[in-house]
Amino acid sequence: MSLAPETSTSWDAISEEAVGDLVARRVVEGRNFTLLRYVYRPGAVFPEHRHPQEQITLVLEGRLEFTVREATTVVGPGEFLRLGPDTPHGARVVGDAPVVSLNFFSPARSEHPHVQ
Amino acid sequence: MSLAPETSTSWDAISEEAVGDLVARRVVEGRNFTLLRYVYRPGAVFPEHRHPQEQITLVLEGRLEFTVREATTVVGPGEFLRLGPDTPHGARVVGDAPVVSLNFFSPARSEHPHVQ
Repeated sequence: MSLAPETSTSWDAISEEAVGDLVARRVVEGRNFTLLRYVYRPGAVFPEHRHPQEQITLVLEGRLEFTVREATTVVGPGEFLRLGPDTPHGARVVGDAPVVSLNFFSPARSEHPHVQ
Repeated sequence: MSLAPETSTSWDAISEEAVGDLVARRVVEGRNFTLLRYVYRPGAVFPEHRHPQEQITLVLEGRLEFTVREATTVVGPGEFLRLGPDTPHGARVVGDAPVVSLNFFSPARSEHPHVQ
């Protein structure tokens, strides 16, 4: 997408991409990072995967359970999870509330386009 | 700070740094980015400055007015502002409500330690 430079932008102004039936995301591409704002509906499961970027996921609403190297950790509002490059991880929604998260990847996803 | 790897971390677990009387922040250093969570009290003003990192500021609560190259833009909840490297910018709180924002810088601040 093309962003007006140096001007406030609303997430609502960015087109939503469906990722299966229960997950949607909006994407902002930086020069050196990719930011994704995810909304996960209850029941959503993100299968295990990995990517060469480091990642930080900040949960704004709801609760996400991550599985990282077979260990689980739940991330809720006001919490975040950091993952180094090439770390296998998956996630699922905990409970009946939707989850809203911000996911930063660096370097930018465009350099490694297979990031989920 | 040292973060337990691959485990959910609360912002409350990170020490707060004062930046003058009206601004406080918590810092997470990545390999390739720095994330700062700012809280600005009403009346806070961030003087114009610039840094070699690109920046994205996401406002979670309250309203921040940015001045970028003498133009102003207000960023509120659900909105964000992107700034390219070396872009002069300052900010001030609008109104009587505190502001909470997430500020990402890339590359990491440790490579250019004078970033404010």
